[in-house]
Amino acid sequence: MSNEHHVDFDRESRTGFPEIIYGEGKTSAQIINIIHELLPRHHKALITRIDETKATEVLHHFPEGRYNVAARTLVYGQCDPIELGHVLIVSAGTSDVPVREEAVETGQWLGCPVETMTDVGVAGIDRLLSQKETLQKASVVIVIAGMEGALSSVVAGLVKRPVLAVPTSVGYGANLEGITPLLAMVSSCASGMSVVNINNGFGAMYQAAQILKLAADLSEER
Amino acid sequence: MSNEHHVDFDRESRTGFPEIIYGEGKTSAQIINIIHELLPRHHKALITRIDETKATEVLHHFPEGRYNVAARTLVYGQCDPIELGHVLIVSAGTSDVPVREEAVETGQWLGCPVETMTDVGVAGIDRLLSQKETLQKASVVIVIAGMEGALSSVVAGLVKRPVLAVPTSVGYGANLEGITPLLAMVSSCASGMSVVNINNGFGAMYQAAQILKLAADLSEER
Amino acid sequence: MSNEHHVDFDRESRTGFPEIIYGEGKTSAQIINIIHELLPRHHKALITRIDETKATEVLHHFPEGRYNVAARTLVYGQCDPIELGHVLIVSAGTSDVPVREEAVETGQWLGCPVETMTDVGVAGIDRLLSQKETLQKASVVIVIAGMEGALSSVVAGLVKRPVLAVPTSVGYGANLEGITPLLAMVSSCASGMSVVNINNGFGAMYQAAQILKLAADLSEER
Amino acid sequence: MSNEHHVDFDRESRTGFPEIIYGEGKTSAQIINIIHELLPRHHKALITRIDETKATEVLHHFPEGRYNVAARTLVYGQCDPIELGHVLIVSAGTSDVPVREEAVETGQWLGCPVETMTDVGVAGIDRLLSQKETLQKASVVIVIAGMEGALSSVVAGLVKRPVLAVPTSVGYGANLEGITPLLAMVSSCASGMSVVNINNGFGAMYQAAQILKLAADLSEER
Amino acid sequence: MSNEHHVDFDRESRTGFPEIIYGEGKTSAQIINIIHELLPRHHKALITRIDETKATEVLHHFPEGRYNVAARTLVYGQCDPIELGHVLIVSAGTSDVPVREEAVETGQWLGCPVETMTDVGVAGIDRLLSQKETLQKASVVIVIAGMEGALSSVVAGLVKRPVLAVPTSVGYGANLEGITPLLAMVSSCASGMSVVNINNGFGAMYQAAQILKLAADLSEER
Amino acid sequence: MSNEHHVDFDRESRTGFPEIIYGEGKTSAQIINIIHELLPRHHKALITRIDETKATEVLHHFPEGRYNVAARTLVYGQCDPIELGHVLIVSAGTSDVPVREEAVETGQWLGCPVETMTDVGVAGIDRLLSQKETLQKASVVIVIAGMEGALSSVVAGLVKRPVLAVPTSVGYGANLEGITPLLAMVSSCASGMSVVNINNGFGAMYQAAQILKLAADLSEER
Amino acid sequence: MSNEHHVDFDRESRTGFPEIIYGEGKTSAQIINIIHELLPRHHKALITRIDETKATEVLHHFPEGRYNVAARTLVYGQCDPIELGHVLIVSAGTSDVPVREEAVETGQWLGCPVETMTDVGVAGIDRLLSQKETLQKASVVIVIAGMEGALSSVVAGLVKRPVLAVPTSVGYGANLEGITPLLAMVSSCASGMSVVNINNGFGAMYQAAQILKLAADLSEER
Amino acid sequence: MSNEHHVDFDRESRTGFPEIIYGEGKTSAQIINIIHELLPRHHKALITRIDETKATEVLHHFPEGRYNVAARTLVYGQCDPIELGHVLIVSAGTSDVPVREEAVETGQWLGCPVETMTDVGVAGIDRLLSQKETLQKASVVIVIAGMEGALSSVVAGLVKRPVLAVPTSVGYGANLEGITPLLAMVSSCASGMSVVNINNGFGAMYQAAQILKLAADLSEER
Repeated sequence: MSNEHHVDFDRESRTGFPEIIYGEGKTSAQIINIIHELLPRHHKALITRIDETKATEVLHHFPEGRYNVAARTLVYGQCDPIELGHVLIVSAGTSDVPVREEAVETGQWLGCPVETMTDVGVAGIDRLLSQKETLQKASVVIVIAGMEGALSSVVAGLVKRPVLAVPTSVGYGANLEGITPLLAMVSSCASGMSVVNINNGFGAMYQAAQILKLAADLSEER
Repeated sequence: MSNEHHVDFDRESRTGFPEIIYGEGKTSAQIINIIHELLPRHHKALITRIDETKATEVLHHFPEGRYNVAARTLVYGQCDPIELGHVLIVSAGTSDVPVREEAVETGQWLGCPVETMTDVGVAGIDRLLSQKETLQKASVVIVIAGMEGALSSVVAGLVKRPVLAVPTSVGYGANLEGITPLLAMVSSCASGMSVVNINNGFGAMYQAAQILKLAADLSEER
Repeated sequence: MSNEHHVDFDRESRTGFPEIIYGEGKTSAQIINIIHELLPRHHKALITRIDETKATEVLHHFPEGRYNVAARTLVYGQCDPIELGHVLIVSAGTSDVPVREEAVETGQWLGCPVETMTDVGVAGIDRLLSQKETLQKASVVIVIAGMEGALSSVVAGLVKRPVLAVPTSVGYGANLEGITPLLAMVSSCASGMSVVNINNGFGAMYQAAQILKLAADLSEER
Repeated sequence: MSNEHHVDFDRESRTGFPEIIYGEGKTSAQIINIIHELLPRHHKALITRIDETKATEVLHHFPEGRYNVAARTLVYGQCDPIELGHVLIVSAGTSDVPVREEAVETGQWLGCPVETMTDVGVAGIDRLLSQKETLQKASVVIVIAGMEGALSSVVAGLVKRPVLAVPTSVGYGANLEGITPLLAMVSSCASGMSVVNINNGFGAMYQAAQILKLAADLSEER
Repeated sequence: MSNEHHVDFDRESRTGFPEIIYGEGKTSAQIINIIHELLPRHHKALITRIDETKATEVLHHFPEGRYNVAARTLVYGQCDPIELGHVLIVSAGTSDVPVREEAVETGQWLGCPVETMTDVGVAGIDRLLSQKETLQKASVVIVIAGMEGALSSVVAGLVKRPVLAVPTSVGYGANLEGITPLLAMVSSCASGMSVVNINNGFGAMYQAAQILKLAADLSEER
Repeated sequence: MSNEHHVDFDRESRTGFPEIIYGEGKTSAQIINIIHELLPRHHKALITRIDETKATEVLHHFPEGRYNVAARTLVYGQCDPIELGHVLIVSAGTSDVPVREEAVETGQWLGCPVETMTDVGVAGIDRLLSQKETLQKASVVIVIAGMEGALSSVVAGLVKRPVLAVPTSVGYGANLEGITPLLAMVSSCASGMSVVNINNGFGAMYQAAQILKLAADLSEER
Repeated sequence: MSNEHHVDFDRESRTGFPEIIYGEGKTSAQIINIIHELLPRHHKALITRIDETKATEVLHHFPEGRYNVAARTLVYGQCDPIELGHVLIVSAGTSDVPVREEAVETGQWLGCPVETMTDVGVAGIDRLLSQKETLQKASVVIVIAGMEGALSSVVAGLVKRPVLAVPTSVGYGANLEGITPLLAMVSSCASGMSVVNINNGFGAMYQAAQILKLAADLSEER
Repeated sequence: MSNEHHVDFDRESRTGFPEIIYGEGKTSAQIINIIHELLPRHHKALITRIDETKATEVLHHFPEGRYNVAARTLVYGQCDPIELGHVLIVSAGTSDVPVREEAVETGQWLGCPVETMTDVGVAGIDRLLSQKETLQKASVVIVIAGMEGALSSVVAGLVKRPVLAVPTSVGYGANLEGITPLLAMVSSCASGMSVVNINNGFGAMYQAAQILKLAADLSEER
C-alpha cells in the first residue's frame, strides 16, 4: 500500500496553492511518503487533521516542521505572502479554539495576514459591538460559532466584506453535533455570508486566502 | 358526530384560564357546539387557527365576536386584566405578522398588557439596540423569528427577564419549515430562554400571561 | 491561550445574574483564570458541566467551593435569596438524577427556593396525582423527562403556573438521544409549557429563577 | 391494465380474514374488478382509504355497500362476530375522528365488538381517570393520539390489557406530520404497548381483532 | 440519593404484572434498594438492561437470582404460568441473540410458554417456509430483525395470529442503528403487525404475555 | 432562453445509448428544441417525466411519437434490440404502476427484452414463490416496491442474477415518501442487490439494459 | 399594518449595498410602501422572490421597473459598476434556470460584470472541460447544481478562484428538495468552496459582488 | 448457543455463490462452527467484517486461510474463475482503502478478474480523465467515494458499462457518516449507476461478479 498516493504537482499552477494533505485516515507512513515527494519540489507542506502520535513520527523524519496540538496541523515552510488586505477570525468561545487554531495555522501557511477577535458572542453583544471598527476594517471575516451559530448573522449585518461562517460541533442535544448551526447559518437572514463544513477552519481560511489573492492579482493586472 | 367535544368547565379553576379552542381540524359545526356550551358559562371564548370561512359561519351564530384574519383568531369577551407588568413581542419581519398577531390577540383576550416591537432583525442590529431600554422595561419578552432564529439569542443576552422564543416557518431550503430555528433556539448559548412550537404565537403568549399572573398573585399574597 | 476569556462583569446588572461558566470544552487552567477574575468582584461563581478531574484541580486553587459529582457543578457562594414563590422540580426516574441535580444546584446558587418531587411517571399516574396539591402550590414547575417525555404534558394540564420542560437523553432507540422527547414536548397539546435543550437542567432553572425574580421585583414596585 | 390484481382467495384460511383492499392509488375501475372477484366468493369486502368520488363509482356497480366519508371506508357485508371480549378505542380530539372512524368501521366489519371513549387528553387527565373502570374493562385498548402522543403512555399505565397506539398527523411544526408521536410512542416508558403506522386506524383494529379471535379460538380448544 | 425510588406495589393488581426494573442508568445500590422492597412482598423480580458488574454486586446481596449475560437480565422467582397458548420468537441471525435472549428471559419470568425459531431470514426464504406449520401454530409471533427488517412482513403474511415486530440495531450505514428497520416495520404492507422500540425484546414479550393472559382470563370468564 | 440546451451528440458512442431527455422542469418549447436537434441525427428519442399537456404540445410538432400517460414517457423510434437475455420487472401493487410503466417503456426503447410479474408482495409470499422459475430464468430482475420495500430482499435471496431495487413513494406516514424503503433496500441482508432513486423506474431499467448489452458485447468479443 | 417596515437607510454605508427587499411573505402594499421610501433616496431597488401578480401591482405604481418572470425579480435602476473582475455563473440544466436568472439579475443590479456557462454537467464532463479556460478566467465562480450537486466539486478543482456553490431543489426522492446537494456541497473534498442556501441565487451573487468590490477597493487603496 | 447457525448449503445452486459469512456480531466460536460445516462441502469460505482477534482464533483452527487486516476479510480457497470481462475498482483516497480492500478480496474469492485505479478524485479531475481508456475498457466499474461522493457521477458519465457506487463514511460533519454521499449517489444525474450500503465494498463486488457471471453464462448458452 506504500505508494498509493499520487501527488498532484500540477495543483499549484492550477489552483494557486500546492496540494494540502488531509491527515485523517492516513497512516504516518503514507504521510511521510507524500511529504517525501512534496517537500523537495514545493519546499513547503501543510498537513491538517493529524494527531500528535502521527505528527511525532513524521517530525522524526522531517524535523523542520512545526506541530500545533490544538489545531492538529503540521506545517513546513509557507507560501509567498499575499500583499493586500487581511482576514479577521471571530470566534465565540474557548471551546472553539481548535477550529480557530486550524484557521490561523492555515492562514499563516498560505501567506495570508490574519487577525483574531476572541470570546465575543451574541449573548453579550456589547463586547462585539465595541469592536465594530475592527470588524469593519477586515477584508474578509471568518466567523466560528457553535451552539446555535447566531454570531455569524450579526457580524454579516455589520460589515460590507464577505463573511465565511464555520459552524462547530460545540454544544449538545439539539446542536446535533454542529448540524443545527450549519443549517442555521445557511438559512441566515443576513446577506453576504456563505458556509463551510462543521469545524472546517481550514476550508474557510483557504477561501479567504483565495479572495485576498484575487484582489492582489486583479490589482496587479490593472 | 355532533356532541363529541366535552367542554372542560373545570379548566379555569384548575389552570387559571378557561379552555381555549384549537380550530384546526374542527368543523364550524363542532366549533359552534363548543361555543354554545362555553359562552353562557364563561362569557368569553378564544378560537385559534380558524380560517375565514369557518369564522364567518361561527359569527353568523354568535355575531358578537371579532375575527382577525391575519391571526386567524376569533374572540368573544376577554379575561380579567392582569395588573402587574407587561409583555413585549419582538418580531423580525413582515412575514412573521400572522404569528405575532396570534400572540397579540391571545394576550389581549387573556387580559395581558401587550406591546410590540417590529421589524428588528439581527442583520441590522443597531435598530434593535437603539430600543434597548424598551426591551429592558418589559416583564416578559416574546421573540418571534424565522430563517435561522438568531434574534432570540441576542435579545436574551440583553434583558434580565424571561425570553420566550417562537421559531417560525418563514424562510426556505435549510430553514426546514421552522425546524432549523426551533433547534437553533433550543441550542442557544444565551441563558434565560425557552422555546415553544413553530409558529405557536398563542403558546408563547399563554405562558407569558401565566408568568404575569403568577407575579400578580404572589404579590397579593405577600 | 491563557487569557482568552473576557469576563463579562457587566452581566449581572444587565441580565440580573453574574456570568455563569459553562465548563465543557474549557481546560481547568482556563476555568481557574476566569474564577480568578470573577471571585474577587462577585464573591460567587457557578461552573456547570465540569468533570471531577477538572473540579479537583480548580478546588486545589480555590478550596472554598463545593463540587456535586452527579450534577457536575462547582459552586462558590450564592446569589441573594429570591423572596417570593418557589420552584418545584418534578422528575421521572433515577436515570434523570444528573439533570435534576444540575437544576437543584443552579437554583440554590441563584437564591431560588427549590423543592423536588421524584420518581413520578406517566406509567403510574396515580403517584403523580396523589401529589396534585404539591404540584399546584408551586410557582414554577420544572418537569424533567426522558423516554417519550409525556410527563410534562400531564403536569401542564394540572397546574396554573408556567411549566418548563427538560427533555433528557434517558432511553434508547427511538428516543434518539433526547431528540424525540424534545420534539414531543414542543408539540405538546398542553398550554403553558415551554422547552429547553436536552439535559439542560441549568437552563430551565435559570429561567425559573428569572420568573420568581420578576415576581419579586414587580411586587416591590407596586 | 384491467386485470392486474390477483385476488388472494387463500388469504382467509391463511390469515383468518379475507383480503382487504387498500384503495389509495387504485382507480375505481381496479377496485370494481377486485370486488367483482371477491364478493361472489366471500360475500363481504372492505375497502379502506377510498375517496368519495371513487366510492360513488363503485357503489354505482355494487350498490349494497355503505360508505363512511369520515373514515373513507366502503364496506360490504361483514365477518362472523367474534364472541369474546371487546375493543375500546380511546381518542383525544375531534381532529382524530377520521382515524377513529377507520378503526370503528374496520372493527365492525371484522365482527369485533367495539366501544369508543372520545375527547380525553393528557392535558385534562381527570376526564380520562374518571373513566378508569371503562378502560380497565376493555380486552384491548386502541389509543389514537396526535400532537406529542402522550395519551398512550398514560393509558398503558392504567390497564392490564394490550394497548395498541396509533400516532396521528394532527398537530403542526415539531409534530413532523406524525413522526414525533410515532417515535414518542415507540420510546414510551410504559410496558404493554406497541405501535402502528401514522393514522393507521385500520391496522390497529386489525391486530385487536386478531387478539380477540385468538382468545376465542384458544378458549374453544380448551 | 438512597431511597429515591418508590416501588409501585399496586402495579401488579393494576397492570397484571409486578413492577419490572429497568437497570440502565441505575446504580447497583439503587437496584439493591428496590429489590429489598420488592422481594419480600412479591417473591419475584426481573431486572433488565443490567450489565455484568452491577449484576454481580446485586447477586452478592440477593444470591438466589440468575443472571443471563447475553440477555443482560437478572431474574428472581417467576410469575404464575399462563395456561393458554404459546409465544414463538422468530429471529434472523446470531447477531440478534441479545434481543432474543431478553425476550426469552422475560417470557419465562412472566410465566409464558416460549418457543424459538432461529437463523431464518428473508434472503433464504425456503428455510422459513419449511417451518410454516410451526409458525402457524403459535398464538403470538415475535419477529426480531435488524438490517432492513423485512422478515416481519413475510411472517405476518403467513400467520393469522398477532405479530409483534422488534427492529434491531444489527447492521451498519443506512440501517441507522435500527431506525430504518423500525420505520420499515411500521410502514409494512402486511396487516396484523405492530412494532416496539429498537432492541426491545422485553417490550414485545411483555405484550405477548398480556395477550395470552387476556385469552386465559376471557376463556375462564366464559 | 431558447437554445440553452446543448445536445450531447457524442453520448451514444461514449455511453452506449443516446441522450435521454428528463422532462421535469423543462418547458415544452425547450423539449421541442432538443428533439429538433436529436431526431434528425439519432432517429429516436426518449423523454421521461413529461406530463400530458407538454406531451400534447410536443406531439403537435413531432406527431410520430407515442405517449404513455401512466409512465409519463414520450418515445420516438427505438434503439437496436439487445440480443441476449431479458429483464424481469417484479412489482408489488397497482399503486406502483407508474414506476413499472416507466421501466417498461424505457426498456422497450433501449431494445431490451422485458417481462413483467405483477401484484406479488411479501404479505402473500406464496404467489411469489409459485413463480420462482420465472424469477430464476430472468437475466436481471428489477424489483419495484413501496411501503417497507421488503420484496426486493426476498427476491434477491431467490435468484442468482443481479437485482436492481426501486423504492417507491407508495405508502404513508413512516414510509417518508419513499425514504424508508430506500434506506431499507440499501440495508438489505440479501447479497446481489443495488438500489436506485425513489420511483426511478427509468434508472433501474437503464442499468439493466447496460448489463444485457455488456453480456452481448462480451459474448461477441469471445 | 401599513407602516411596519422600517427602511434601513444606513445599510448602504454600513454594508456596501442598499437594502434589498425579500418579496416572499410581503403583500404588494407592503412592498409599494418600502419602494416609496427607498426610491427617492437611493434611486434604485431590487425586490427578489416576488411573483408576477404582486409585481404587476407594484409596476402599476412604479412603472419604471423591470420584472423577470423566471428570476421572480423586480429591479429599479442599478448600483455603480464594479470595475475589476467578473463573475461566472455555471449551471447544470434548464431546470436550474430560475436560480441562475435570480443570480444574473442580482449581479447586474449590483453593478457586477456577469457571464454565464450553461448546460454543463458532471455526467458529460467533456463539455465542461472544453471550457476550462473560460472557467479559469473568472474572478469568482458561482456553481448552481441540483440532483447530487457534484458539479461544484469538479469546478472547484479546476480553478484558483473562490467557488460559491448553490444547491437547488431540482431532483426528486433522495434529493430531499435540495438538502442532499446542500450537505454534499458542504462535505466536498474540494478546497476553496463555500455554500449558500438552497435555490439562493441571490445570496451567492451578493457575496460574489462583495468579493469583486473588495478587490476594487483594496486595489484603489494601494 | 453453539449450533444456532444453519448453513444454507443449497445457496450455491440457488444464487450462484456459496453462503458468505458476515463476521460482525458473531463470536469466533460461532464462526468456527460455521466454517466447520462449510469447508468440507464447499472447500472454500469467505468471512467479511471479522476483526483481527477473532480471525486469529479462527486461523488457529483452520490455518489454511488468509487474513487481510485492512479489508477485515478471512478467505479460504476461492470460487471458479469467471472467464469473461473484468471489474475495475475506482477509489478516491487512501482513507477509502478498507472498503476497496474488502471489494478486492471479495472479487478474488468469487473468481472475478479485478483491477484497481486509486487516488483519483473529482478535485483533480485531470488524473481521472487521463485514465479514461482504462475506465472504458472495464466491464463493470465500482466507484468508492466518501465526502460528497461526486466521483461516481463523473465516472458514470464517461463509461457505457454499469457503475456500482459505494458511499463511504470518510469525511466529517455534513458527511453524516456516509448518509450524505449515499443520498447524493442515489440522486445522481448520471444514468447507469446504482448504489449499495455505506462502506459495503463486499456488496458492490458481489453484484459485479453476478454481472460477469451472467455474461459468461449467456454467452455459453448462445
